[in-house]
Amino acid sequence: MLDGRAMSESALARAVAAFSRGEPVLVFDSDFREQETDLLWPATAATPEVMRQLRKDCGGLLFLAIGDDVGEMFGLPYLQDIHTHAALVAENPVLAALITDDLQYDTRSAFTLSLNHRDTFTGITDRDRALTTRRFGELAGEMTDASTEQAIVALGKEFRTPGHIPLCRESPGGLQTRQGHTELAVAIARLAGLAPCTIGAEMLQPEGDIALSVEDAREYAHEHGIPMLTGDDIMSALGIE
Amino acid sequence: MLDGRAMSESALARAVAAFSRGEPVLVFDSDFREQETDLLWPATAATPEVMRQLRKDCGGLLFLAIGDDVGEMFGLPYLQDIHTHAALVAENPVLAALITDDLQYDTRSAFTLSLNHRDTFTGITDRDRALTTRRFGELAGEMTDASTEQAIVALGKEFRTPGHIPLCRESPGGLQTRQGHTELAVAIARLAGLAPCTIGAEMLQPEGDIALSVEDAREYAHEHGIPMLTGDDIMSALGIE
Repeated sequence: MLDGRAMSESALARAVAAFSRGEPVLVFDSDFREQETDLLWPATAATPEVMRQLRKDCGGLLFLAIGDDVGEMFGLPYLQDIHTHAALVAENPVLAALITDDLQYDTRSAFTLSLNHRDTFTGITDRDRALTTRRFGELAGEMTDASTEQAIVALGKEFRTPGHIPLCRESPGGLQTRQGHTELAVAIARLAGLAPCTIGAEMLQPEGDIALSVEDAREYAHEHGIPMLTGDDIMSALGIE
Repeated sequence: MLDGRAMSESALARAVAAFSRGEPVLVFDSDFREQETDLLWPATAATPEVMRQLRKDCGGLLFLAIGDDVGEMFGLPYLQDIHTHAALVAENPVLAALITDDLQYDTRSAFTLSLNHRDTFTGITDRDRALTTRRFGELAGEMTDASTEQAIVALGKEFRTPGHIPLCRESPGGLQTRQGHTELAVAIARLAGLAPCTIGAEMLQPEGDIALSVEDAREYAHEHGIPMLTGDDIMSALGIE
């Protein structure tokens, strides 16, 4: 008989192996946070088919979660930080009025800049969103030994902002400091030995107006043969209480 | 026999009447631009059901198009402008690298700030996106006689940025200067006598990776009894060549 912990380790090993092969995983965060399940793929595995499955089966915002190290390498600032910059606020008072200081489940928004690959047309088709996502993931892997200056030049050569792929940057300290979907999404990429760049979307109820329940997400996982994990599974694997 | 122009005026009248009742319309921009059809509702008509139809039937980004006058009233800046602000670029060199100077169908991005209503939880459920959208549309109507200072205070009391509803601000001069989805979406709201705040999304192919063809969009319009217009219909009605 396997105990709960062993089951969870085995589920984790299967999920990590699938993710490392470019296959999807499902991650439910926690009953005590957003209570949402995300469908996730490595950014480098993004194809038009992947983007189509995300938009058709999930319903939430398609987002690209990136590791704090990737954000640092490319110098990608948090929107919350640049939109509260004193010089900008002085000229745009609405930025002070719209300040984020009241999130119900967190203290910080993870959003950084949104991007489009420069070779996209409208930016929103499956083809365009796949190109933006895949090339960002590939470039993050190619630039690991580059300087920040080189990485920024390479990024700007291929991408522009604003775009149709919102990026979410992992909190400094990762899951140790914030247990959000962004942190979970990049943690699974790292466990799979990939650059921490993960494309995903929140699963909403097909016929209801709230998030898909964890039971329905498990049913979807079973039907599609997709490994499903919880935030606790990932945190246990990393030795985080 | 009706000639093409009369047909088009009749179709326009039906679409405008439907929109003024809080019903949807479909707008195909042009063969010479993005070649995309958007499904649109007045922002004030946003309900969880409306958001669900948008995410399920469209596949593209859900966006809130606002009139240039509404953007001015609330002091909402274009992302392209604030993200190229000298003080910000000096501290975040990536902003210079990611500059938008190469759009294939336009010279400007319409994106302004993204918003969440402060009473939302995750911001992404149909319930949350409907609240953000509906209240923004209502507030725009309530604030028409207010000063910019009052409008900004009222906006900040209810909304925060960043959020899950990306806003697109009409170009100054509207359709006279830019014939984009944003300008078309707010033009139909004005024709219907509503505050120029329109929620919509781009229709993508259900089983393909590009935009829905205009023929398939017409089929969808027919099946769902939704009036469909082209950019030319709207521009003709406004006397714009």
